[in-house]
Order: sequence, then structure tokens, then C-alpha cells
Amino acid sequence: MDRTLTLDEAWQLSVRTLRSAGFSAAHAEAIARTICAGQRDECHSHGLYRLIVCAHTLRKGKVSPDAEPVVSDAAPGLVRADAQGAYSLLAFERGLPLLVEKARRQGIACLAINHCYHFSALWPEVEAIAAEGLVALAMTPSHAWVAPHGGTKGVFGTNPLAFAWPRPDAHPFVFDFATSAVARGEIELHRRSQKPIPEGWAVDADGAPTTDPDAAIKGAMLTFGEHKGSALSAMIELMAGPLIGDFLSLESMAYDAGAGATPYHGELVMAIDPATFMGGDWNQHGPRAEALFDAIVGQGARLPSQRRFEARARSIASGTVTIPEALYKDLVALTGEAAL
Amino acid sequence: MDRTLTLDEAWQLSVRTLRSAGFSAAHAEAIARTICAGQRDECHSHGLYRLIVCAHTLRKGKVSPDAEPVVSDAAPGLVRADAQGAYSLLAFERGLPLLVEKARRQGIACLAINHCYHFSALWPEVEAIAAEGLVALAMTPSHAWVAPHGGTKGVFGTNPLAFAWPRPDAHPFVFDFATSAVARGEIELHRRSQKPIPEGWAVDADGAPTTDPDAAIKGAMLTFGEHKGSALSAMIELMAGPLIGDFLSLESMAYDAGAGATPYHGELVMAIDPATFMGGDWNQHGPRAEALFDAIVGQGARLPSQRRFEARARSIASGTVTIPEALYKDLVALTGEAAL
Repeated sequence: MDRTLTLDEAWQLSVRTLRSAGFSAAHAEAIARTICAGQRDECHSHGLYRLIVCAHTLRKGKVSPDAEPVVSDAAPGLVRADAQGAYSLLAFERGLPLLVEKARRQGIACLAINHCYHFSALWPEVEAIAAEGLVALAMTPSHAWVAPHGGTKGVFGTNPLAFAWPRPDAHPFVFDFATSAVARGEIELHRRSQKPIPEGWAVDADGAPTTDPDAAIKGAMLTFGEHKGSALSAMIELMAGPLIGDFLSLESMAYDAGAGATPYHGELVMAIDPATFMGGDWNQHGPRAEALFDAIVGQGARLPSQRRFEARARSIASGTVTIPEALYKDLVALTGEAAL
Repeated sequence: MDRTLTLDEAWQLSVRTLRSAGFSAAHAEAIARTICAGQRDECHSHGLYRLIVCAHTLRKGKVSPDAEPVVSDAAPGLVRADAQGAYSLLAFERGLPLLVEKARRQGIACLAINHCYHFSALWPEVEAIAAEGLVALAMTPSHAWVAPHGGTKGVFGTNPLAFAWPRPDAHPFVFDFATSAVARGEIELHRRSQKPIPEGWAVDADGAPTTDPDAAIKGAMLTFGEHKGSALSAMIELMAGPLIGDFLSLESMAYDAGAGATPYHGELVMAIDPATFMGGDWNQHGPRAEALFDAIVGQGARLPSQRRFEARARSIASGTVTIPEALYKDLVALTGEAAL
């Protein structure tokens, strides 16, 4: 059975759940913005379901409910937003204005989010930058679940990479993918339903290919695209790790020490202002990108995020989102209120 | 039969071949540096063999043999090096000092190489930046040979992406891969020897999967890593194309108009100075990256470029490179001299 909520009801429920769990108003609202955007886009695993995970992680005592991010001007091309042990999202919001200002002034700039817990997709962040007319890249490590190509033991995180390209008369071109063959949640889902996983997702603890989800969880996940995905994953470790003075996925995993909490690490966000790069010529060159999108869509292929934008249009048109009744009841219970 | 040349003989032969073909001294030396580096690293398809391709392309009248690159300070975070219709390599060399200076000052900066013919691997460029202690990324489009995921017609180039991470006591961590499933030359090699290609490399002109190299050449190549490789390839089109005011692979192909010459487009190179990002803390954080490399190599997996660095060590130790005797004779013939 499902429960349909208006977008405002979903927002209010999210904020109340997070406030009841103990998050400060600023953190609750930053987290709720991202979670409600996920639900609106029908990314259910990054939607209201995540409120349960946030409340649970807070109870475990790992994440700070109220640390104020410290934003600093670290270099002409670098903003630093130290999350101080809280979730990443408020730090991103607080660092964004200076990142945009720097990108506009210099053409390219980075935002390093440090010392954060990270549970969210990266597309909300690159979309927020694209909404300013800027090109965006974002990447993070996670926990060392993924073996390098040719190896058998976890070294890399699922290490997502996201990119957004602003389009004046359309949703931005956006992708956001894990450099692991699949998201870790996919293997968890197969384990819960005791279904075999496809070949190519994981190896067992001895490094042998496996289709057994239990063996996969004890072993290591694989990267997408063999040695190329593996190389890309290493790049993300380095750039969103030591380059910004933060943890590798190996270090995040060691820090977790088996608690099974949300990974704790850094995030690298990059913004490029095409108008600063190209000056007035951007008015001619920007629209040339549309020929690329036309050539993709015109042959019946899809742009990344196209399904998500279609879901968004549906949610906005109806003014509602739909979640399982059981999830709704669990969330209401977390607020300490009576279900309607 | 093979011919062994000292490193200096290979250099002299390369420069003489290019000068005889009509390249200016500056272009001949920039091209020879990259070609000799490829031969030294036993990348035979990017080694002395390429001299033949360079001489041939010049005879076709497409590439300029002597245009002086115009380097300009386009924005605080952007150097522009306009190759003015010549090969990219001299423009890269001329733009590099200002790129390094900007990266050191701001933390991050880009070099846009425009209006260049491009035949070379990208690792020599990212390695040159890593030699300055900087992190480097480079990318280019090519010709529209590669279909987007879910499509059947060429839109993307083979769109290589290269990355280098400087290591104080070792070769840098370097990767350089095509975002197509394989390099176009691999399909050409299979065609020449009339061997079937593996599934997943290409589709025929009707968009059906094919193992026939002739059908593949008439059809379209596929990206590596399905929708993820396809998304990455689109990013490279956009960032090394419209963002820097240069051609998409579709436009490069249209400009070529069937001549079959080297693709003509732009290149985006990015440099990041970790010492500017991290200040004195880089002394602690830089060495933490070594834990990543240790964890990869320690389980028996290889770092990208490891084979290439081993080949380099062999060439430097022996002071020689080896090429087929037939290639040697062809090159000497191009210089107009008598073979020794």
C-alpha cells in the first residue's frame, strides 16, 4: 500500500523527522532539501527512505547533528568548507556562493568539503552549480569495498562521479554514476531477496568471481569498465582524498572500525564558468553543444538523467510524491507524532 | 627483421624525417619529442611509425607545417594556445609555462589548445605537468566514430582521457585511455588481418552488433563501460569542445569531409597544484596517496602505465629502441638520404 503526500507534506515530514532525531534546523533543512529532491525525481533509494538512515546514523553517535560548517578562502581557486563531522550537505550549501564567485572571476575553481559524512547522490550538487550557468564536476570516495582491476581486495570506494552542463532552455545535461560495477545497495537488495547477482559485479573473499550476494559482501565489488573504470576510481580517490587533505576509502573504512556507519571523508566539487573562459563568444559556442544532444536523442538514445527529469515533471505536475505506507508510518513514528 | 637505433639516432632520424617533409624546426622538434617518447616506452603505434602518418598528412595539405602558436592569457584560470591549424604539440609546449604559473598561483588552471590537428597520446602531456609537481587531466574529441549508449550512429570521438598524479620518489601515477571500447586502430588491425572483432566493440551500419571489422568500420564503434563510458565521452565532447570554443567530433568529421586526415579540434588540459591547495600540509597529505598505490600493487594488481614505465626503463638502460627494418628504410627514404 502506498501513501501519496503533497510536496509540502513531504518537506514538512522530512524536516520534522530530522529535527526530532536531533539535527539542528540548518542541517535538517539542508538534508531535507536533498532528500525531497530525490523523492521528487523518484530516486527512491535517495528519497524519504534515507531519513531512517540519517536518524539511525545519528543515534549511533558518529555524525554531528549541529556542527556549523567553517568556510574558508583557501586559495584563489579553492574554497574549503569544513563540515566538522556533520553531513556534507550544509557544508556544500555554505561553500557554494564563494565557489560560484571564484569560478566567475577565474574561470575555474574548486570546493573542498572536508570531514563530512556522506550519504547523498551528487546530482543535486552539480545541478545547483549548473543552475548558476556553470559547468560542474563532483566526486567522492566512500568505503574500501571495491577491488582494483586485476586485484581481489577492496581498495576503492564506490567512488561516484557527477557532471552537469548548463543548457539555457532545457534541464542541464547531467550524469552521476558509481565507478563500481553497481551501487552497493544493489548487492544488498539481492542478498535480502536471496537472488544471485550477475557475473562481473563482485569476487568472493578468495578473489574468485561469484554470483552469490553473501560471498560478494564478504569479498570485494568490481569496478565498471575493467581497467578503465579502475583507473577512474583511483583518480577519484586521489583528487577527493589526499589532494584536499582528506581520507582515502581505505582510511574511511579504518576510521569506521566495523560500525557500519555512513562513510566519512571529503568531496571535491569543481565549477567552470564558460562565459569567463569564452567571453562574449560563449553566446555562439554554448548553443553548439545542442548539436551533440540532438545527435544523441535524434537516433533514439537517451541522455543520462532523462528518466529522472521525466519523473520530476510528473511530481511537479501532480504536486505529489508517493512512498510506501510502511515507510510513512515509520517516519511519523520517528517524529513522535500520531499518524494521520 | 628489426633495426636497433640509439636514442640519439632515433631522435635525429625523427627530426630529419619531419624537416624533410617540410615541418619548421620548432614543430619538427616538438613532434619528435613526443614520438621518440612513445618509441622509448614501446608504444609502437605512437612511436616512429607515426612519422609516416605526419609526413602523409602534411602532403595532403591539411595541416600547417610552420604556424607559430599564439599563446594568450584568456582568464585568470585559462591559458589559450591557438595552434592555428598546425599539430597540437608545439602549442602545448608553448602554453605549458603559463599554465604551470597559473596553477601555482591559483591552485587550478586550464590550458585550451585550439585549432589543432591531433594524433598523439595524452600521457606525454600529463606527465610533463606532473614533472612540475602538479596533478594533470587532459582530454580531446576526435572524429564521430562512436555511438552513444543505446544508439547506433557515430556521435562521439574515441575521446581519450588522461590523468597524472606526481609522486616524489617514483614515476607519476598515469592513465590515458580512450572512452571507446577500443582504439580505432585495433579495428583497423583486425580488418587488415581479416580477423573477427570481439562482441561489444562495434555495431554495423544498421545498428546491429557485429564481429565483422569491415561492417564495424562502416557502422559505429561502441563506448567502454556501456552508459557510464558513454556519459564520460559526452563530457569530453563538451569540455574539450564548446567550452573552449572548438569543434565537437561531429564537427571535426564534417570539416574533414571524407579526406581521412587526422582529426582537427581542440584539447582541454587542466593542472592543479596540491601545494597551493594544501599549503604546508601537503607534506603530510601527499605521501598518504602512496597507501593507495601500495594497496593496489601489494595485492598483485598493476598500476596503469606500469608496463610502459618498465619499457622506458629498458630503453634507457640499453640506450636504444628497436623498430622494424622496413619502417627504418621507409623513414630514411623520407629524409631523402641513403640508408646506412
